[in-house]
Amino acid sequence: MQQPIILFGGASFEHEISIVSAIGLHQAIGVRCEFVFLSSDHRFYLIDLINMRADYFASGKFSRSTELFLANGGFERKTLFGRTPIDCDVIISVVHGADGEDGTLAALFDFYNIAYLGPRIEASTLSYNKHLTKHLAIMAGVRTLPYEIVRRGEVVKTPYPYIMKPLRLGSSLGISVVKGASDLDYAHDSAFEFDSEAIVEPYIASVREYNLAGCYADDWHLSVIEEPQKKEFLDFDQKYLDFTRTSKAKEADLDGNVAAAMREAFKRIYGVGFFGALIRCDFFVIDNEVYLNEINPVPGSLANYLFDNYESALIALIENLPRRKSITASYNYIHSIRSQKGKL
Amino acid sequence: MQQPIILFGGASFEHEISIVSAIGLHQAIGVRCEFVFLSSDHRFYLIDLINMRADYFASGKFSRSTELFLANGGFERKTLFGRTPIDCDVIISVVHGADGEDGTLAALFDFYNIAYLGPRIEASTLSYNKHLTKHLAIMAGVRTLPYEIVRRGEVVKTPYPYIMKPLRLGSSLGISVVKGASDLDYAHDSAFEFDSEAIVEPYIASVREYNLAGCYADDWHLSVIEEPQKKEFLDFDQKYLDFTRTSKAKEADLDGNVAAAMREAFKRIYGVGFFGALIRCDFFVIDNEVYLNEINPVPGSLANYLFDNYESALIALIENLPRRKSITASYNYIHSIRSQKGKL
Repeated sequence: MQQPIILFGGASFEHEISIVSAIGLHQAIGVRCEFVFLSSDHRFYLIDLINMRADYFASGKFSRSTELFLANGGFERKTLFGRTPIDCDVIISVVHGADGEDGTLAALFDFYNIAYLGPRIEASTLSYNKHLTKHLAIMAGVRTLPYEIVRRGEVVKTPYPYIMKPLRLGSSLGISVVKGASDLDYAHDSAFEFDSEAIVEPYIASVREYNLAGCYADDWHLSVIEEPQKKEFLDFDQKYLDFTRTSKAKEADLDGNVAAAMREAFKRIYGVGFFGALIRCDFFVIDNEVYLNEINPVPGSLANYLFDNYESALIALIENLPRRKSITASYNYIHSIRSQKGKL
Repeated sequence: MQQPIILFGGASFEHEISIVSAIGLHQAIGVRCEFVFLSSDHRFYLIDLINMRADYFASGKFSRSTELFLANGGFERKTLFGRTPIDCDVIISVVHGADGEDGTLAALFDFYNIAYLGPRIEASTLSYNKHLTKHLAIMAGVRTLPYEIVRRGEVVKTPYPYIMKPLRLGSSLGISVVKGASDLDYAHDSAFEFDSEAIVEPYIASVREYNLAGCYADDWHLSVIEEPQKKEFLDFDQKYLDFTRTSKAKEADLDGNVAAAMREAFKRIYGVGFFGALIRCDFFVIDNEVYLNEINPVPGSLANYLFDNYESALIALIENLPRRKSITASYNYIHSIRSQKGKL
């Protein structure tokens, strides 16, 4: 594998989770990496391996590290009389939530022509906004639960019990189950703390949920299908304990046809435009039919614990990253207008 | 108005058009502006007003101008011992097509915390990809023509005559009308030169097309509704002659109810997420019903020629730009894990 930079942090509600995620990913891939931290005020710092401890960031000590700056082709650091590039073959981002999953970092790397493993701008937008994810599922021909979009103060029409989530966030923050009128205020306050719109779906207590991760790189690289342990729903703490998992996931006990349908659904969703990314899809199974619950375009520690052959999937992906077509300016139009008008 | 920077150029097929657009916009707003040129290799240059002539760019002379670099809060230029910021209250981008309309520049300005007039990442993605625009119209409750998405080599099912467009581009390049089998090869070659997917819609020769531009800034600022002169469809050259228009558009001769329905459709589309931008929607009217044809999130010269009161709309918009919520990192989760595990 080329020497990657693991990028983590970001101005998001999952800033601190991303630190844990970077540590988990580093342990999983076991090759020499550089670490670059994105602070919540959008500065980049080169972090020594020895400082990859949570308190180095929580205490603010990271600001003593070498600051980096984006430039065409990669990162630069300041020198006495200017700036000098640092080695960077490819960036692997584990910036979760805002910045990492909303298209911001994808756009930066595209603009500065830096190779990166992660969702491109369009795929980020589609998975970050849960309303757009519903439309993505329609495009992919994959079922989802019925839903309703509500704004603050609007009355929810979905009957109890329902689950309510901020429309954009890419994490489990602000999510509540509403079983009756007494849950309403808390659920609305939680959801609208994070976004001006929320998505409401029926809550099915007995629904079975499954996780499947993968990527396309010359061929499909799919993980095992895991049925995660769950309470009512996976809350923030529970979900991110996965990031520090070292044990491998077990293949879920699932009917062969349903498992095949789930892999097929994954491929159709991925094919809408996730090339370059390793994503995790969370599915429901209801009456032997597969439903997309949500897409994690930058899953915790890049879902390494779900794979039997993680390193080979990652290497294949890095060797097959899509690059944006370069467009060279032409001036034919201006020349033709000039010749028509005699000036411009 | 604060002193704006007009940003133009970009790595797109409309690079040269953007130069014309910047000149047109500057003439329309009549206040002191700075000009920043984005070259097709993604470098920024501060351009003197006297050099705002097409041949300065076409000849490559622009590279003698002061190069600028993005930094938190705005642009910087190099000095002997470092970098120094240049004044920048707000960026008005007339970068059309890729970079300007696909979310790339929006993400850069969001990331570097620079105020800008233009579509945000999500709105850019939705209007840049014509398949997503169809879904945006569904979300807005606005009619569009039936359509079909095709890839190279796939057979089109829509009966002749149909119109075929590259799925992503944001301009009129690669668009053809297919009236019969003899047009097929040319249409497919044209469309797939620019994208791996194309959108096909029925071609209605007699359809009437209308343009309406506007923005929301404390209140709605809508332009007149113009019925542009047209041939079969507006091709690249024709469309961009608009950029150098100095004459004001005339209100189209349109039934009052239809005009009201068109304004209502515009507001619903804009409301999906175009806050911060001045956009132009192109509508069809068929049997007195309004259909969205396409959205121009960065219209040529920001559609100034369509407005009676352009400067006041622009000032209102600049004074009401949405800013991304800033998120400060918290380390509660790490602290709680540390206390649970005794280390991390």
